[in-house]
Amino acid sequence: MSNYTAKEIHLVSRPTALPTTENFKLVETELSPPGPGEVLIDQRFLSVDPYMRGRMREDAVYADAYQLNHAMYGGAIGEVIESGSDKFKPGDIVLNGGAWRDRILAKDKTLGLIQPFDPEQLSLYLGTLGMPGLTAYVGLLKFGEPKEGETVFVSAASGAVGANVCQIAKLKGCRVVGSVGSDSKAKWLQEECGVDAVINYKTCGKLTPALMQAAPEGIDVYFENVGGEHLEAAINVLNPFGRITACGMISGYNEAQPGPRNMMLIVGKKLRISGFIISDHGDMQSQFLADMEAWVRDGKIKSKETIIEGVENAIDAFLALFSGDNFGKMIVKI
Amino acid sequence: MSNYTAKEIHLVSRPTALPTTENFKLVETELSPPGPGEVLIDQRFLSVDPYMRGRMREDAVYADAYQLNHAMYGGAIGEVIESGSDKFKPGDIVLNGGAWRDRILAKDKTLGLIQPFDPEQLSLYLGTLGMPGLTAYVGLLKFGEPKEGETVFVSAASGAVGANVCQIAKLKGCRVVGSVGSDSKAKWLQEECGVDAVINYKTCGKLTPALMQAAPEGIDVYFENVGGEHLEAAINVLNPFGRITACGMISGYNEAQPGPRNMMLIVGKKLRISGFIISDHGDMQSQFLADMEAWVRDGKIKSKETIIEGVENAIDAFLALFSGDNFGKMIVKI
Repeated sequence: MSNYTAKEIHLVSRPTALPTTENFKLVETELSPPGPGEVLIDQRFLSVDPYMRGRMREDAVYADAYQLNHAMYGGAIGEVIESGSDKFKPGDIVLNGGAWRDRILAKDKTLGLIQPFDPEQLSLYLGTLGMPGLTAYVGLLKFGEPKEGETVFVSAASGAVGANVCQIAKLKGCRVVGSVGSDSKAKWLQEECGVDAVINYKTCGKLTPALMQAAPEGIDVYFENVGGEHLEAAINVLNPFGRITACGMISGYNEAQPGPRNMMLIVGKKLRISGFIISDHGDMQSQFLADMEAWVRDGKIKSKETIIEGVENAIDAFLALFSGDNFGKMIVKI
Repeated sequence: MSNYTAKEIHLVSRPTALPTTENFKLVETELSPPGPGEVLIDQRFLSVDPYMRGRMREDAVYADAYQLNHAMYGGAIGEVIESGSDKFKPGDIVLNGGAWRDRILAKDKTLGLIQPFDPEQLSLYLGTLGMPGLTAYVGLLKFGEPKEGETVFVSAASGAVGANVCQIAKLKGCRVVGSVGSDSKAKWLQEECGVDAVINYKTCGKLTPALMQAAPEGIDVYFENVGGEHLEAAINVLNPFGRITACGMISGYNEAQPGPRNMMLIVGKKLRISGFIISDHGDMQSQFLADMEAWVRDGKIKSKETIIEGVENAIDAFLALFSGDNFGKMIVKI
């Protein structure tokens, strides 16, 4: 009595370095109609994010590890098709945890109703208006504490998190320096987002002198997305009482990175380094959404998305996050 | 018309690794009698501290670099012999910045009158009741924020700063684990100071498993005096939302240390690392002295000192800080 089929991506082996297509498998499965409290959802947009790499490890620390031979999961936006819940009706647009598949049977208490300020920009709720945007907002404002006139350095600056950090910092009156891996990303940040200086880390030579040149008065806040050489350079160039806010270190997700050799400077410069995971900061969600929707509506925050179509291409979309082939938020459209 | 002579230790070349006696010179100099606002002081006790190694570098970051061919300086306690100031009279005991010499002509505004709670324990004002004690108090309470029942890990745990951190943490209801370099230091911490577990880092093998064994429920606060392998082990064993408070990293003062290879864990574990320099926290001095004098008077805080006599032996006293040959606060008695 199955009426529906779904395509899901399963994790079939744990990658030890950069994941390959061998680690994943596309599986077709059958779904029953929704029972009481259940909702059947056709996905519209799936999110693939760097943090998912951590969940592929057996000893995942960010969040629970994905189980082998089960569908992976993560943020997604879909439309309710059939409902066994009195909270949702067919046609409702819901944020759900069922990425990596095109259709899902979900419990109603795991869903959030989206009332988009613009139905044409629904996918923003996986990026600028979703988890990456909240990560930027909380990480910069709560842990970075930038003051007007200070300099903020952002790595992976055109990424889903980084581009929002750059623009929020500009709105707070900061000078902003970004680091990216291509000239087209640099151009977009400077011309569209008002970022003051951008370093292309692939062509700039040694990062510390390049950062000193881009930020001659030093930096006061470093928003850490990358780790490795970026972290060491930031510590070198931070001013006394500088803050590092760290939501991820993508350079180390697939292979171990040497540690920063200049940790001793955190004493002499009185630096503070704060790691955080966004799921601990749901209390800032409503304030974030009010601010961010207004900034997007007023054109003060721009968003860039790379959209790949089809659940079967979600693996390629995910792998592109590590090669730098994406530009802005990576979205899988169903 | 010089009435007085003084012996001073000058820095004559900048050490590039572990300093040697070649970097220093004992110089005899003449002092005039005090003019208006000046005070002549016979030193009783000189402090030698690890941070002074940083001032021997041309690019000192902690504090201004020592000048070549001038007397070095640092905390000292002396008795006023002659005074051209209406603020101090002969016989007054004063805290002053004139270490590394046996007699100094000082401006009155650079001096602090000491009213010792016990004249027999004057040297404590260079240790437990002085800068190292304040460093322990501020670093642990302001930046470490230990809660009752939490576990605090302290490196260089029998040192001038570390021994106070251990005992303040015990007074705050924490479980305390220390790391030291000899069994006699371990014994003193456990038997005299009530420290719950002590690791001898020279004999324990790999530090991470040793720390896991000493702190089976993980650590919540790490008080960092050492750097290098200690920092990496602490990051490995810290619990979520753990705090690292760093006032120094002595293992890196004379030779570069590799950075911690596990910095990525600060994100997943939501750690906070705070570097600080005690001179920024003078606002906590009176609260510190009130608490600490009471704790010492009541026998709740024990102090260990290594006393070396004679200004000409100050260099050996300083060098012993890096070999671990000292035990507790190193004091030079004049």
